[in-house]
Amino acid sequence: MSVLEAAEFLHVSTPKSWVEQASNRQPLLLIDHANCERKAASSALSMIYRYEEQCDFAVQLSKIVREEMRHFEQVHALLKTLEIEYVYLSPSKYARALHSYAREHNPTKFDDLLIASIIEARSYERFELLEEVLEGRVAKLYGKLKESEHRHFLAYLHMALRLEEETVINARVQELLSHEVTLITSFDDQFRFHSGDPVGTTG
Amino acid sequence: MSVLEAAEFLHVSTPKSWVEQASNRQPLLLIDHANCERKAASSALSMIYRYEEQCDFAVQLSKIVREEMRHFEQVHALLKTLEIEYVYLSPSKYARALHSYAREHNPTKFDDLLIASIIEARSYERFELLEEVLEGRVAKLYGKLKESEHRHFLAYLHMALRLEEETVINARVQELLSHEVTLITSFDDQFRFHSGDPVGTTG
Repeated sequence: MSVLEAAEFLHVSTPKSWVEQASNRQPLLLIDHANCERKAASSALSMIYRYEEQCDFAVQLSKIVREEMRHFEQVHALLKTLEIEYVYLSPSKYARALHSYAREHNPTKFDDLLIASIIEARSYERFELLEEVLEGRVAKLYGKLKESEHRHFLAYLHMALRLEEETVINARVQELLSHEVTLITSFDDQFRFHSGDPVGTTG
Repeated sequence: MSVLEAAEFLHVSTPKSWVEQASNRQPLLLIDHANCERKAASSALSMIYRYEEQCDFAVQLSKIVREEMRHFEQVHALLKTLEIEYVYLSPSKYARALHSYAREHNPTKFDDLLIASIIEARSYERFELLEEVLEGRVAKLYGKLKESEHRHFLAYLHMALRLEEETVINARVQELLSHEVTLITSFDDQFRFHSGDPVGTTG
């Protein structure tokens, strides 16, 4: 796989309108972000079951679970420091929509790894953008977290490459990324960490 | 709650026949134990969702998830060192049977916490027994892990005590523990970390 830089890997950049909204809705952003870390841990943990035959994935996935939970705790600590009250938020459509493209009968079951890789790449890209426009503790945390997201993006991609030939993986990644473009650029009336375009010029 | 020592908390000790079998079936014991750590992490993670309104439980549960995953990695490392090949094992009946007693309509939903507390107490009790009869690296690891299990046993119990009065919790714990006695003392033809009596004198 020639492209292993998350920002280049993705087919489209986050719309500016999303970045503007994120900087104006930090409490909501942070609460949803905490939920995303929890979901990322849950997803990595479920992959330990899913790839049980590849038992050398187990320890790698376990470390990802621990890192995501650590981030979850860091975001919770930040919510407390910033006196943001935790409220229930419905999840964004993004991850569920991407997972709806996973093929049940894909023999080596690499779709889940590629979807996880795409989610990590998008998170990296958004943390990088947010690190620039946000300030203080939030910017500082996001600067640190983006490095982990990039590592996870590569880790998932490399696991998929252990299961199938590069040409097969690359073709499938491009298909999944083209679905991702639609989710990122379409109008989305719900603001979340992974939501689409709040203005919806291309929706 | 007056009894906060795991070994006293349980209504019955592990049958000697189980301990004998465990010392003769270490590869199986270790593989199932790795699975138990993964399931313990998964259960703690799902409780973050279940007790979302109690958001101060979230960070505590997240730390438990991280610890269980760390143990999972330690057991995997031990399997590798001891050249034990990981094979698929069906889970023991124990946790599933205990969870079948959880009441869906229990308003403050503390049954899951009490069941988690009982599982941790039983694990502690078995690690303590195994530390005595096993040798080398396995005994050393089990000696370390038992301390965590004891902390988790208390943590879950204290979380339940935050949701409901002590008399209510105590009465419910005794009911659940009486079910646990049956699982531990009945004949069990499947050997696992939490399996019943392999000889089945009381089965």
